[in-house]
Amino acid sequence: MISIVLIGTGNVARHLFDTFRLCPETKVVQVLGRHEKNLDYFREFSGTSSDFKKLLPADLYIIAVNDDAIPSVSQLITDKNGIVVHTSGSISMDELSHHDHRGVFYPLQTFSEERKIDFKKVPICLESKQKEDLELLKRLAHLLSDHVYEISSEQRKSLHLAAVFASNFTNHLYHIGNTICRENQISFDILKPLILETAHKIEDLSPHDAQTGPAKRGDKRTMKKHMEELGDSGHKEIYMLLSRSIEKEYHKEGKN
Amino acid sequence: MISIVLIGTGNVARHLFDTFRLCPETKVVQVLGRHEKNLDYFREFSGTSSDFKKLLPADLYIIAVNDDAIPSVSQLITDKNGIVVHTSGSISMDELSHHDHRGVFYPLQTFSEERKIDFKKVPICLESKQKEDLELLKRLAHLLSDHVYEISSEQRKSLHLAAVFASNFTNHLYHIGNTICRENQISFDILKPLILETAHKIEDLSPHDAQTGPAKRGDKRTMKKHMEELGDSGHKEIYMLLSRSIEKEYHKEGKN
Repeated sequence: MISIVLIGTGNVARHLFDTFRLCPETKVVQVLGRHEKNLDYFREFSGTSSDFKKLLPADLYIIAVNDDAIPSVSQLITDKNGIVVHTSGSISMDELSHHDHRGVFYPLQTFSEERKIDFKKVPICLESKQKEDLELLKRLAHLLSDHVYEISSEQRKSLHLAAVFASNFTNHLYHIGNTICRENQISFDILKPLILETAHKIEDLSPHDAQTGPAKRGDKRTMKKHMEELGDSGHKEIYMLLSRSIEKEYHKEGKN
Repeated sequence: MISIVLIGTGNVARHLFDTFRLCPETKVVQVLGRHEKNLDYFREFSGTSSDFKKLLPADLYIIAVNDDAIPSVSQLITDKNGIVVHTSGSISMDELSHHDHRGVFYPLQTFSEERKIDFKKVPICLESKQKEDLELLKRLAHLLSDHVYEISSEQRKSLHLAAVFASNFTNHLYHIGNTICRENQISFDILKPLILETAHKIEDLSPHDAQTGPAKRGDKRTMKKHMEELGDSGHKEIYMLLSRSIEKEYHKEGKN
């Protein structure tokens, strides 16, 4: 049995909590949160508190709060023997410098209140200062997920940056697609199967090999027509920059 | 029974052919292609020819060739009563001006040799010059797909442009994510569940509501760190432009 104190009440904390709750080898003994109201979600199945002085002993303290709050929150954990980890993609492990037994437990997924996530498929990226602590983190991670990786703080930073391109920016392009549809009285539903297939394609093909479209083909005529059609100057800039970036990738030789 | 002549031998032609072949209410009587070799794929289940003079009579002529070749290829269809359609997202129906019975049969999906597509889920966008021809196109489209739309040439142009953002550009961002991973000895596999969930999220949420990440949060510190970390000047430019575009969307009021 791994005993856990969860610090934070947001999306990541909730998804972790729900997963631990269904896992008989783990027990969340306490959830800490600043606001009593946000603790309601957890109260039925765990002890809760908004007071760090009442922190219970546990094998593991998981800090799942906003990035900016991680260093200060970690200093509120005192006189405890458990390992202290955070769940952030972009914060170095050493921001928990207060703790000799520190580490990172980073589930790389986009969590939202509205959608259930199958944690078995969520990659979990682990790091620890003490080698022996990694064993407990690994044991826990394998209880939740089929995809467990050891990733250094340095690598995690890059991974998080790569995720911004592959997820945050990608979603913004969906939004632009949606905007263009709306402006022309077209249902965004027509684009959804294409969006899904584009994502699923990279299960079989590298993104380099999966690329299609006018910029890949070097089809200047279509690109020119698209630029003329775009009303929004911001969208024009994005169209031009991304098209050039694709052209550069596929037509290097042609340019020299 | 709807009799069809298919003109073209590329990915779209092959995917259509394979779908028609399994549909007892349709028959591809002939496939036309410039190169005898490319006709091999079709020979077992259909007549084939590389000579437009040998074109067979049919209810429908489907031109599935490169956009640039559509007008000239369409003029090679002479003295036939069938409806002539093309399958392109970006070409107006009236580029088939030679034909009084003209239309568009545009399956909005990304087709590649390597992946099987469930055509039932592919949206098919229809247009016809003569109202009565739409009936046959609709009948055919419903045989293949559960998602059939009437879309004008004007709307189709916009839809194609929206698809470039939501699919072609998106895939390029996957590629940049892959590049960053590779440069840091991280397996791209770690990002794949995130990419899939990001796409599936828009089945339940609008892209506007699904947006996450540093630019959405207005987290300048993380954005600054990311910019410093990016080595490639092209990637830097893309990071900046897309972050600004997201900031503009969510922090309009904050700026005034």
